[in-house]
Amino acid sequence: MTPLRIDLTADEIPDHWYNIAADLSTPPSPPLGPDGQPVSPEAMAAIFPGPILEQEMSSRRWIPIPEEVRQIYAQWRPAPLVRALRLEQMLGTPAKIFYKYEGVSAAGSHKPNSAVPQAYFNQRAGTKRLTTETGAGQWGSSIAYAGQMFGLPVRVFMVKVSFEQKPFRRSMMQTWGAEVFASPTALTQAGRAALAADPDCQGSLGLAISEAVEEAAADPQTCYTLGSVLNHVLLHQTVMGLEAKKQFAKIGLYPDVIFGPCGGGSSFGGIAFPFLADQAAGDRQARDLRCVAVEPSSCPTLTKGAYTYDYGDASGYTPIMKMYTLGHNFMPPGIHAGGLRYHGASPLVSQLFHEKRIEALAVPQVATFEAGIQFARAEGIIPAPESCHAIRAVIDEALACKATGEARTILFCLTGHGHFDMASYDRYFSGKLEDYDYPAEAISESLKHLPKVG
Amino acid sequence: MTPLRIDLTADEIPDHWYNIAADLSTPPSPPLGPDGQPVSPEAMAAIFPGPILEQEMSSRRWIPIPEEVRQIYAQWRPAPLVRALRLEQMLGTPAKIFYKYEGVSAAGSHKPNSAVPQAYFNQRAGTKRLTTETGAGQWGSSIAYAGQMFGLPVRVFMVKVSFEQKPFRRSMMQTWGAEVFASPTALTQAGRAALAADPDCQGSLGLAISEAVEEAAADPQTCYTLGSVLNHVLLHQTVMGLEAKKQFAKIGLYPDVIFGPCGGGSSFGGIAFPFLADQAAGDRQARDLRCVAVEPSSCPTLTKGAYTYDYGDASGYTPIMKMYTLGHNFMPPGIHAGGLRYHGASPLVSQLFHEKRIEALAVPQVATFEAGIQFARAEGIIPAPESCHAIRAVIDEALACKATGEARTILFCLTGHGHFDMASYDRYFSGKLEDYDYPAEAISESLKHLPKVG
Repeated sequence: MTPLRIDLTADEIPDHWYNIAADLSTPPSPPLGPDGQPVSPEAMAAIFPGPILEQEMSSRRWIPIPEEVRQIYAQWRPAPLVRALRLEQMLGTPAKIFYKYEGVSAAGSHKPNSAVPQAYFNQRAGTKRLTTETGAGQWGSSIAYAGQMFGLPVRVFMVKVSFEQKPFRRSMMQTWGAEVFASPTALTQAGRAALAADPDCQGSLGLAISEAVEEAAADPQTCYTLGSVLNHVLLHQTVMGLEAKKQFAKIGLYPDVIFGPCGGGSSFGGIAFPFLADQAAGDRQARDLRCVAVEPSSCPTLTKGAYTYDYGDASGYTPIMKMYTLGHNFMPPGIHAGGLRYHGASPLVSQLFHEKRIEALAVPQVATFEAGIQFARAEGIIPAPESCHAIRAVIDEALACKATGEARTILFCLTGHGHFDMASYDRYFSGKLEDYDYPAEAISESLKHLPKVG
Repeated sequence: MTPLRIDLTADEIPDHWYNIAADLSTPPSPPLGPDGQPVSPEAMAAIFPGPILEQEMSSRRWIPIPEEVRQIYAQWRPAPLVRALRLEQMLGTPAKIFYKYEGVSAAGSHKPNSAVPQAYFNQRAGTKRLTTETGAGQWGSSIAYAGQMFGLPVRVFMVKVSFEQKPFRRSMMQTWGAEVFASPTALTQAGRAALAADPDCQGSLGLAISEAVEEAAADPQTCYTLGSVLNHVLLHQTVMGLEAKKQFAKIGLYPDVIFGPCGGGSSFGGIAFPFLADQAAGDRQARDLRCVAVEPSSCPTLTKGAYTYDYGDASGYTPIMKMYTLGHNFMPPGIHAGGLRYHGASPLVSQLFHEKRIEALAVPQVATFEAGIQFARAEGIIPAPESCHAIRAVIDEALACKATGEARTILFCLTGHGHFDMASYDRYFSGKLEDYDYPAEAISESLKHLPKVG
C-alpha cells in the first residue's frame, strides 16, 4: 500500500520547542509601554507567570517540553502528515502535496498546542485561575480544555454578539468546565463603563481583551492567556513543524515550499519556523525553501500593512509592538475565517517578512472556499475557513507546477476541521458568500492613527 | 512516557472483515417478503449490487477487504485505542478503561467504515448512482463522502424537518458533492402521495426510506445504501474490533467487558463481534468476556422489545426481519442521540442477545450527558450523544470495580465526537434536557401491530 499517511509514535513527540528568536539577524524589538520605554518584566508579571515570561523574552534556541505537557499532547499528537495524492491526481500536477493535519485535537484545531503548555506553566507557577477573551470561540475552547487538563478554572470573556449567535463553541467551553460570560460584563471596570455608555453594547474583541486583562491584573493569583501573536505562543506551535520534519525524514523528502494561513501568525510560525531553522543552520536541502504566509485580501496585513509599532488590540490597552499592521483602528470585513481577522501580525513573523526570509500572499474569500471544497472532495476532510486560505495558495502553486512540469514538494498546515463552520459553507452553496473589495481607504485612514513612538 | 494511545501503522489495517454469521449456532433467519416467503436474491438485486448481496447472505467467516477500500480507510484508520487513565484516576477505580476512538474520520463518526466499502462495491458492480435516506445526517454525510471517493453521485432524501432545522450536516453533504432533497419530494410516487395528502408534510425517516428505495428500484443503474441494521453493514464495521484486538495484543491485555451504544447495532456489532469470534473459537482469554449493548431507556429495544419478525422501517415498505423490536409503529421520544432512536435492532445483534451471548442495558438520557461531560473533562474529547450511552455504562462498571476492588479491563466504542451535537449539550447546561418516562403504553400498543408471519 502506498503510505499516504506518515505517522509517528508517541515517543517521537518532540521534547523541545524551537525558538526562532535565536536565529534572527537582530534581536526582536521589545514591546513598549505608554512611556515609550520597553515594558518591564515586573509589569508583564502582573498578568503572565514567570515561565511564560521567560519564554516570551528568551533567546535560547531550544526550550524543553515538559513531560506533563507531552503526556497531554499524546492525547492527539503526533498529528498525521498526509500525502494529498488524490488532490494531486485531480489537479493533474507533478507536484507532491502534503498536509499536516491539526484537526485531530479535542478542540478540532491547532490552538491546544499552546493552550496546554500555557495552562501547565501557570499551574506550576501557582496561578489559581486563568482569564482570556474569545471571539468565535476557537481559542476560548482550547484554553477551557487545557485548563481542565491541569485543574485550573478558566474564565472566558466572549464577545456578546458571538455568545448569542454562536452558542456551540460556548457549550463546548462549558463542557470543559469553563465559566463563559457575554462581554461586556458588570464584573470589570471596562465592562461597566461600556454598559453605562450603552446598555445594549454588543461587545468587541478589544473590549473582551481589556476585561480579561483587567481581571488578571487585579488578582495576583489570576493570569491572562492568549492564543496568537506573542513569541511564546509561536514557540509552542513549533511542535507542528518539528513533527513534520521527522515525518519528511522518514520518507526521504523535504519541502520546497510551505504554505500556512496567517492571521496573528501562530499556525504559520508553528509549521514554518522549524524549517527556517534548517535554513539558518545552512542545511543544503533548505537552501531554496520558500515559506509563504497566506492572508485574506480583505485583511492584508503583511502584503499591504506598515511595519511599525502599534497596539496589539483594537482599544489600545496593550503595549505597542513592532509588527506589520493595518492600524489598530482597522475593522476587517466580516469574512468567515474569523481567525484571520486581525489587524496585525506576530512580531516574529513580521520581522522575518521584513527581512525577506518569508513571503506573503493575499487571497480573496470565495476562491478560498472553492479551494476548500475541492480539497474536501479529494481528501475527505472538510477544512476550516482559515485553512482554506492555505489550500487556495497550494492549489495555485500545484497548477503552476503543472504548467512548468516541476515536481515541487509542497507542505501546508491544515489547521483544523470545518465542523463548526458549516454555516459558512452553507452561505457558499446558497450563493450568498461574497468577496470584499480591498479596503484601501479604510486601511489608509486607519494607518493615520498609529501610536507615536519615542 | 506511559503509552496511553496504542497506535497501529497503515499496513496493520485489517485485510479481512469478520462475519459472525459463520459462528452462530443456527443460521440467521432470512428476511421475508409480503408473501411470507424469504425475499429472493433477485428481488434484493433491484436495490443492492451483487457483491453487497453476497456479503449480506454470506456464511464465510472472513471476507477480504479490497486494497482500494484499505487505501481510503488509511485516510483515518487505524483508529486509535486510548487508555482513559485520567478518567480512571478521576473515578478512583482499579479498572483499566480503554476506548476505540472513531471520531477521527472525515465525517466524525464510525459510519464511513461501511459507507466506503458500500460505495466501492457499487462502483465495481457498475452502479452509476446511490440513494439513501438520512435523519439528522450522520449516515447521509458518510455516504456522500464515500460516494465522492469513488466518483459516484449520491442523492440523499433528508427528512424535511431536519433539512430545515439542521443545515450543517446538509452543507457537509453538499461539500462532498451530494444532492440533498427535503423529503417528501415530488421526485417519487411516495413523496407525491405524501405531499398530496399534506402539502406541509414535515417528512419522516420511513417516508425518506421509501423515496430512496423507490428511486433505486426504478433505475437499474441506481442502488440503495443504508448505514445500520443489515448484516453487511455490521460486517464492515468489524474493522473496529479487529484493530482493537491487535492493539490489545500489543500491550498484552484483553478486555473483560465491552460496551457499545446500540441503536440499529452497527457500532456495537463492529466493536464486539471480533471478540465474540475468540469466544466462539474457545480462546481462553475470551472465556469470561461480557459484551454489553447500551440503549436509551426511552427506546429499550433489546431490554423491553419482542423477538419476532417486524418491518425495518416505520412505514412497512421493507421486508420483515427477525429481530428485537418495539413495533415499527413505535415512535421513540425525541432524545438527542438520534442514532439510537430506532424501533428495532440488527437481526445479528438480536440473535446473539436471544442466545444470551451478549447482554443489554438501558440508561436514561440526562445521566448519559452527565457521563459524557465527565469523560470530556477527563479525556478532552467531547463525545457524541450516542457514545455517551456507552460511557454511562462504563463509568457505572468502573465504580462497581471500585466497590469490589476488581481491576477489570473495560473497552468501549467512542463512536464519534459531539461537535455537531453541541445544541444538545447546550440544552443540558441550560437545564432543559429531560428524561422521558419509560413509554410502556406506547410500546405495548405498538407491539399489537406487528406483521403476521406465515
